[in-house]
Amino acid sequence: MSATVQFRLRIYQNEAIAIGPGKVALLEAIARTGSISAAARELGMSYRRAWMLIDETNRGLKSPAVHTAAGGAQGGGTHLTPVGEALVRHYRDIERTAHAAAARQIRALTQLLAD
Amino acid sequence: MSATVQFRLRIYQNEAIAIGPGKVALLEAIARTGSISAAARELGMSYRRAWMLIDETNRGLKSPAVHTAAGGAQGGGTHLTPVGEALVRHYRDIERTAHAAAARQIRALTQLLAD
Repeated sequence: MSATVQFRLRIYQNEAIAIGPGKVALLEAIARTGSISAAARELGMSYRRAWMLIDETNRGLKSPAVHTAAGGAQGGGTHLTPVGEALVRHYRDIERTAHAAAARQIRALTQLLAD
Repeated sequence: MSATVQFRLRIYQNEAIAIGPGKVALLEAIARTGSISAAARELGMSYRRAWMLIDETNRGLKSPAVHTAAGGAQGGGTHLTPVGEALVRHYRDIERTAHAAAARQIRALTQLLAD
């Protein structure tokens, strides 16, 4: 049996998704690559789409998750702020906690599945 | 702050969703209404779509979740089997368990949100 279990957390604020799997994956890609365009490429989305998701994420938070430095002698660069890092960490912690806490019940559910 | 938190569990089998929020909501509507067409209406989907989801659910399980009795003197009728009832119960238990276990971390995450 090859069942895989996916837990997806979405936090809605004013009827829009403030935090969800797409935004978190984008923040993680920015942390890895240090660049919006590289992160967008990695996730197969347009630069414009990535930029809009980041803008939406930043505006939904008390303080921004992503900081973009202006280009200069050392060039620009995009990185997560401490708030962005906390956001990603809490989000992944929640998924892990949920999985672990419900492991027995998830097993009971997957045992109903055909092989 | 009006943040609402949604946990969605999906179980994939052979790269298709074997159990997910849509199928569980449909099973619950069938349990409530005793009828595929009434359940479909309640969820705003076509009879055909509901029927296909039920068929897919049944075929993905070791034994079916939904039983449809042929019409007769007492008329037909659709109800959940014990397996269907267990499926819904486990699924909702998992959501509740996940929520409760991660409550503190969810609070930490929602506190990052703008009001």
